[in-house]
Amino acid sequence: MFRTHTCGEIRLSDVGKQITLSGWVQRIRDKGSLLWIDLRDRYGITQLFLEEGAESAELFAQARELGREYVIKVTGVVTERESKNPNLPTGEIEIRLTALDVLNISKTPPFTIEDKSDGGDELRMKYRYLDLRRNPLQHNIALRHKLGLETRRYLDSKGFFEIETPFLIKSTPEGARDFVVPSRMNQGEFYALPQSPQTFKQILMVAGYDRYFQIVRCFRDEDLRADRQPEFTQIDCEMAFVTQEDILNSFEGMAHHLFMHIKGIDIGKFERMDYATAMKLYGSDKPDIRFGMPFVELTDLAQNKGFNVFDQAELVVGIKAEGCAEYSRKQLDALTDFVKKPQIGAKGLVYVKYNTDGSLKSSVDKFYSEEDLKNWASRFGAAPGDLLLILSGTADSTRKQLGELRLEMGNQLGLRNPQVFKPLWVTDFPLLEWDNESQRFYAMHHPFTSPKEEDVALLETDPGKARANAYDMVINGVEVGGGSIRIHNRDLQKKMFSLLGFSDEEAQNQFGFLMNAFEYGAPPHGGIALGFDRLVAVFAGQDSIRDCIAFPKNNSGRDVMIDSPSVIANTQLDELGLLIKTQS
Amino acid sequence: MFRTHTCGEIRLSDVGKQITLSGWVQRIRDKGSLLWIDLRDRYGITQLFLEEGAESAELFAQARELGREYVIKVTGVVTERESKNPNLPTGEIEIRLTALDVLNISKTPPFTIEDKSDGGDELRMKYRYLDLRRNPLQHNIALRHKLGLETRRYLDSKGFFEIETPFLIKSTPEGARDFVVPSRMNQGEFYALPQSPQTFKQILMVAGYDRYFQIVRCFRDEDLRADRQPEFTQIDCEMAFVTQEDILNSFEGMAHHLFMHIKGIDIGKFERMDYATAMKLYGSDKPDIRFGMPFVELTDLAQNKGFNVFDQAELVVGIKAEGCAEYSRKQLDALTDFVKKPQIGAKGLVYVKYNTDGSLKSSVDKFYSEEDLKNWASRFGAAPGDLLLILSGTADSTRKQLGELRLEMGNQLGLRNPQVFKPLWVTDFPLLEWDNESQRFYAMHHPFTSPKEEDVALLETDPGKARANAYDMVINGVEVGGGSIRIHNRDLQKKMFSLLGFSDEEAQNQFGFLMNAFEYGAPPHGGIALGFDRLVAVFAGQDSIRDCIAFPKNNSGRDVMIDSPSVIANTQLDELGLLIKTQS
Repeated sequence: MFRTHTCGEIRLSDVGKQITLSGWVQRIRDKGSLLWIDLRDRYGITQLFLEEGAESAELFAQARELGREYVIKVTGVVTERESKNPNLPTGEIEIRLTALDVLNISKTPPFTIEDKSDGGDELRMKYRYLDLRRNPLQHNIALRHKLGLETRRYLDSKGFFEIETPFLIKSTPEGARDFVVPSRMNQGEFYALPQSPQTFKQILMVAGYDRYFQIVRCFRDEDLRADRQPEFTQIDCEMAFVTQEDILNSFEGMAHHLFMHIKGIDIGKFERMDYATAMKLYGSDKPDIRFGMPFVELTDLAQNKGFNVFDQAELVVGIKAEGCAEYSRKQLDALTDFVKKPQIGAKGLVYVKYNTDGSLKSSVDKFYSEEDLKNWASRFGAAPGDLLLILSGTADSTRKQLGELRLEMGNQLGLRNPQVFKPLWVTDFPLLEWDNESQRFYAMHHPFTSPKEEDVALLETDPGKARANAYDMVINGVEVGGGSIRIHNRDLQKKMFSLLGFSDEEAQNQFGFLMNAFEYGAPPHGGIALGFDRLVAVFAGQDSIRDCIAFPKNNSGRDVMIDSPSVIANTQLDELGLLIKTQS
Repeated sequence: MFRTHTCGEIRLSDVGKQITLSGWVQRIRDKGSLLWIDLRDRYGITQLFLEEGAESAELFAQARELGREYVIKVTGVVTERESKNPNLPTGEIEIRLTALDVLNISKTPPFTIEDKSDGGDELRMKYRYLDLRRNPLQHNIALRHKLGLETRRYLDSKGFFEIETPFLIKSTPEGARDFVVPSRMNQGEFYALPQSPQTFKQILMVAGYDRYFQIVRCFRDEDLRADRQPEFTQIDCEMAFVTQEDILNSFEGMAHHLFMHIKGIDIGKFERMDYATAMKLYGSDKPDIRFGMPFVELTDLAQNKGFNVFDQAELVVGIKAEGCAEYSRKQLDALTDFVKKPQIGAKGLVYVKYNTDGSLKSSVDKFYSEEDLKNWASRFGAAPGDLLLILSGTADSTRKQLGELRLEMGNQLGLRNPQVFKPLWVTDFPLLEWDNESQRFYAMHHPFTSPKEEDVALLETDPGKARANAYDMVINGVEVGGGSIRIHNRDLQKKMFSLLGFSDEEAQNQFGFLMNAFEYGAPPHGGIALGFDRLVAVFAGQDSIRDCIAFPKNNSGRDVMIDSPSVIANTQLDELGLLIKTQS
């Protein structure tokens, strides 16, 4: 037997008991004739104590030889500590050792196993088994487990079945790039790994399963941007005989359950905002509504006063930073530099300070009278002490740029508290996006999304204007998930494929099984998919998903711990009937 | 709104209520001026009723046009039925329709959507969405959902974390064949899909997670035998600081929980049997212990009496079929044919009838006196009325053949009731298996399994004799899962790889990350993996796993519904830097 207790559970009430623990040596303090060892396992840390002469000399000598991260099994008696540690649940006791077994030794780890480690990213990835011993990662992994379990509990209680869909499916060129898997039994043919179980969950609705979910791995072979992983996990859901309203209510309920059961927070009712409003007021389809600072448009007031930049702009638009009129030259320059960063791409920033004495000072005083600026301030509802920050240019880009600036001001003003959660439904997304390069429409959500009934006629006349029954769940400016009411009619689905530039043959070849299924009594249905990695990160209050995944890949899609991908044996290639092209 | 209720919930107490239902048309009975429709959804069937003249003529005409599997939404009033159906939970009521919407039409399905369908296997696979509408499949899918959820509940309650491990990992030639995934970002290199998360779960133990589980898809590119799938699901588990006894108790507890919560059955304590005994008594490492019929060895009694077949055999061994002395010539011939089938491969079958009058009659009366046969019967503990069935040959094959015959007799005698569950731990498996063809040892479980401490010395002297800390969970003759205590010492692991014929370089190249991890404080650990598809089939009382999987592949590894695998575009191949070899 390796232990009677874990390292996290012994308390003052256990004093006098003989116990056995196993774990890792976190720290040793050697005061000559006295020796303390912190023993660590997943459940906590317990202090061990030895006194020279009190026990056998052999035991004392053995304990002195221990190193960091040695795995040991110890037996001893629980005693009350002289100097207690109120920060540790086990801080009132220590164990007086009577026996010690070294279960395994350890080399000195290449970085410290502490909350703040001294290891760099690559080193920590290579020795992931050591990095994963650190508290912050253990906390994330435990949180992820709890989130998964509570998600399942909730959906089960609402009559959802978790149904597993296949991983070896069929490659379709629509959407992102697939990972493919060569078939040995059918040489020259390939499976693809699913980007999502989309068509299978729709098939399950056709099959009458009514309410489906799955927490499932998905795959996308994309050039990795920061914080994208080639494999990621979704909470994938679908319901039959529902309207958009039913779905929003169901998954609002789920989010409510998760926040209540995991963080003890009542997140209240979700706000709702349509896509057009979100873009107009926040320059983003995933606005962070923990703070206001909505956009105010000034085009009419700002033009025709001789300021060429504004006169030539499609849109002049700004935000009001309350109480920031005292911003220094340096601070304002930094904001200008921020919006001019290539990732943001604004040409410049106009500011107006509404000083506490009631005067107005701007970076464009040359063109605008104090009266003009007063009119601006009044449209902003600004008060003395406020700062107006204004951008201009083409409407779409300017809104996106101002959206970034708004988030930056939110950060600077401490308005984005990671302990506060403000959820939002963004609805009424456009059905299609025009791509200038390929001169065709793409589905904004995916090709199975239904247009709003009142916009179906637009598919014939002005498809770009049609809105979809599509919605995103946004929490604190993070798109946590998205979904739609699907098309369940074969003809409408065919029409949609044709708008997306599929020939009938291509559509039949790739999605024929779904369109055939629609001929055998497909019910109205819709669903949602939530990014599970992202959801864990939101709950953990972290920006990055990487430390919410046990074994993530780096930005080149490599697992540096196991050194993968790697070359395979020629016999494997032969069996698959494949040749590797020589690099030219 | 599509419905106020489901088709499974309306009762007599609802009479008078106006309700709305949505579902599929299961059946229509048209009696001229009276019309009944069975409306079906996942939750049940509700009878709809229309009377000509009672409602609008339009409604009646519309209802008459409905076909099988049409999707409709209906509104009506709950009324008491005149002739009740006691077999249906909703059998006391029917709905008098006031409105009907056709939500979608349906072609006539290519087979009947009934408990016993008239569709053949291939047709049902192609139209899986229709097959999945049938009750037996819905039952299996619901059962699978419940088994998954209860497994998670149980393991969570015991402190296990569900931790996701990667799907894009590294190919290793040991074990079965990997499916590989070409990397676009690292051309010429490949990921592999996991055959199991074995090394990752061991890494998690090194990382201190203490108790891990995952219900996870695994992949094996094998030539498919009947009832093998290229992708399958495991309940994969690992624990640190445990002995074999701890693991057996933990997962016996889990099985207990599942049977209790899902079938309301107390399966009692697991029997235990070591591998050597299982082979000697039942000729199988997964004996069905719902019935006895253990092997009885006769070699000493049967040899040197002039019967050449027995004289030349390494082993003469038989079973006693109680009360079967009256078996006819035809029945005995059928048993002989059974053991001579190529899959079983015996040369012949010897029988001894212990007649109810006390006389003995055998197929080898020429060589053995009644006294001889009496001695045999006495060793079997046979009574008048019993039949002895005896095989001979080399020990291992003869035991396997007799094991098959024992199962067949169990079937014939109705001793294998699918509603009775008898679990068993088989322990002390051999560590290694010698393969004559490649003239090397293979790991019987896998290369990470530890030898029994008392057998470690055998690794130097007689490795084939060493027993492992390995165990299988067997229920009703089905191997539901297996596991082992792992090696956690780098040197022993190296020794093991060398016994398996790995050079140091190969071992380091393929499993270096694990052996490195063992240098940084690896705790003692072990685990188990249960076949989830198989477990569902056992619970469902089914022999085949195929109908316990929503979207299985056929015996050629094809998904005939989506028609996969399939050819991919040349641009995809180019991006991956691959060429397909022309078939010669």
